[in-house]
Amino acid sequence: MRIAIDAMGGDLGPRASVSGAASAVMADPGLEIRLFGPAARLEDEMSRLPRPLAAASSHLSIENAPGVVRQDQRPAQALRHGGDTSMAAMLGCLARGEADAGVSAGNTGALMALSRRALGTVGGVPRPAISTAIPTHREGRCYLLDLGANVEAEAPRLVDFALMGEAMARHLDGLSRPRVALLNVGVEGTKGPASVQRADEALRRLPAVNYTGFVEGDGIFAGEADVVVCDGFVGNAVLKASEGLAKMLVRRVQATFEAHWTSRLVGLLARPALGRLRRELDPVRYNGASLLGLDGIVIKSHGGADARGFHFAIARAAEEVRHGLPGRLAAELEQRRSAADSAVADDRLDSGSRIRAAAGMEPGGDATSQQE
Amino acid sequence: MRIAIDAMGGDLGPRASVSGAASAVMADPGLEIRLFGPAARLEDEMSRLPRPLAAASSHLSIENAPGVVRQDQRPAQALRHGGDTSMAAMLGCLARGEADAGVSAGNTGALMALSRRALGTVGGVPRPAISTAIPTHREGRCYLLDLGANVEAEAPRLVDFALMGEAMARHLDGLSRPRVALLNVGVEGTKGPASVQRADEALRRLPAVNYTGFVEGDGIFAGEADVVVCDGFVGNAVLKASEGLAKMLVRRVQATFEAHWTSRLVGLLARPALGRLRRELDPVRYNGASLLGLDGIVIKSHGGADARGFHFAIARAAEEVRHGLPGRLAAELEQRRSAADSAVADDRLDSGSRIRAAAGMEPGGDATSQQE
Repeated sequence: MRIAIDAMGGDLGPRASVSGAASAVMADPGLEIRLFGPAARLEDEMSRLPRPLAAASSHLSIENAPGVVRQDQRPAQALRHGGDTSMAAMLGCLARGEADAGVSAGNTGALMALSRRALGTVGGVPRPAISTAIPTHREGRCYLLDLGANVEAEAPRLVDFALMGEAMARHLDGLSRPRVALLNVGVEGTKGPASVQRADEALRRLPAVNYTGFVEGDGIFAGEADVVVCDGFVGNAVLKASEGLAKMLVRRVQATFEAHWTSRLVGLLARPALGRLRRELDPVRYNGASLLGLDGIVIKSHGGADARGFHFAIARAAEEVRHGLPGRLAAELEQRRSAADSAVADDRLDSGSRIRAAAGMEPGGDATSQQE
Repeated sequence: MRIAIDAMGGDLGPRASVSGAASAVMADPGLEIRLFGPAARLEDEMSRLPRPLAAASSHLSIENAPGVVRQDQRPAQALRHGGDTSMAAMLGCLARGEADAGVSAGNTGALMALSRRALGTVGGVPRPAISTAIPTHREGRCYLLDLGANVEAEAPRLVDFALMGEAMARHLDGLSRPRVALLNVGVEGTKGPASVQRADEALRRLPAVNYTGFVEGDGIFAGEADVVVCDGFVGNAVLKASEGLAKMLVRRVQATFEAHWTSRLVGLLARPALGRLRRELDPVRYNGASLLGLDGIVIKSHGGADARGFHFAIARAAEEVRHGLPGRLAAELEQRRSAADSAVADDRLDSGSRIRAAAGMEPGGDATSQQE
């Protein structure tokens, strides 16, 4: 399996990506990894790999790409001037079919825009969505999406997110009927903005989806659903707030132990366990996030990811390749849309066209033109 | 100081509110509390108060209100049929000036609607906002608003939230220049939805406000701002997700200790500290949330609040009374609006009216008519 990596762009520079790639190869020797970035810097990092990881070098190759997409660059700038960057070169390799998946820790907006141009989307999805698995109560996990690719999302997009998240939970986690929920300010049917209300109506009309209704923010971590859908502004805020809270909490737990002499010793003993806990609770940094809806596999590693985080993002990419995610998504999105279409066609009432419009399932309809 | 309490509506029934009221009186003997609800039930709860709390009985009086607003009732229903409820009776007492503040753990939407009708709003605010203090890094706190009263909020409302949150942090926490930030998906100026972009422009034009720009979700807990502003959908999702995460984390920390024999003993010793931590991290349940912008003081106690949570909500109400919050908010909102108006009038360019419109400061303008 061939993975293309944008070795630049993360906060910790190419050291994290090169070590992460080597460590991923040690864990999965079937991987062949191409690293994109300024050749001299990457060669330097390769030569510094510590002994156990150096054994992976034969599975790593370097492709020179001198430019770097900066974190503060706007997507439009990256599209116009990003040709020689490690990100664009990695995606070009993917688009030519020379790699099975790509990974980058760079600028998310630029990665979205360049990926969409290089690979296109499947199943009529106008823009990809970003999703990651969040740890929940009792060792479970929940896919939250969108995490920021679509800051505003009308009902048809929320329905797309639900279908894509459902397919991911089914194929990657082996759930037969993943529970899909919409994030809202209350579980009662009457609450929430119009876009969420309309997506709720549309999802109720899709019998193939195990749609369970609304969930509130605390339901995400309580394990009430396997897929939770919201627009990218909300998803981003929830994910980052959770990251911030988890960091603060682990610090406070440590401080609690260090403040009492009775517990100081055990605080020390507990430190490895607390470290594990912190990693479990820092999903983006450690799991990688999928760009769903692309005609290809692209994983966004956290900007602050260390080698271990990069390793996990690569492993995630390999898992999606093994499950043939984009192909399955494409087929299922088409099928579900037409199923929804005929369900709506059976309905002779006025509400039929309203619901079909709400779900963006009007043949040839443009989802983005559906304004409130 | 006279506090009116809707003793019904919380998940734990009147026991939590009656004990909480008694405990608040023990801590602050200057309080005179009127409890609204079915008289027989409240008398029964009063008679069951344990010995130390029973001493507070002389400061508690019961007002019969046989009806209860249910949690699943729509605000419109509560407005039409809620006349005999404990919530409406409590607010009526407040509106007649027979109490200085009101507290309820009941249905939030109904409380918003009934409060607005009974008390009206100040400073041209069309609808109140809900805010609570969230614990941050290094024992700090941050007011987050709105938490669900306004599921969609255009720029003028976000500016209102900023002004109200700023006034609260200044008066109640004694900060001379509270740092005010807008929640967004990135700190770069170019990101985010139009409403947030326009609110950013408008807040930059208000020199009296120490506006620091955008903050991401993790910035809330990192203590990057004293006031963080967002619409009610996002604020509600962030707050509830944080509540859910905190609960899960504390459980996992406990499980971590109980899994290792070396730490089991210290796990037991640490239990009180973990309990404190859980309370600190469960802001709504333990702090109460303020309905800001009303011409009166109403505190929403968490639906799941126990007696201790109810006690804190009453203490919060008393604090707002001592600082004369609504009067100060009214005066300052008027003053800041006219300051913003003249700042805009000095600006002869086209952008002037755009910014003034964005901030909803057009004399006689209707903030709610500003659609995207």
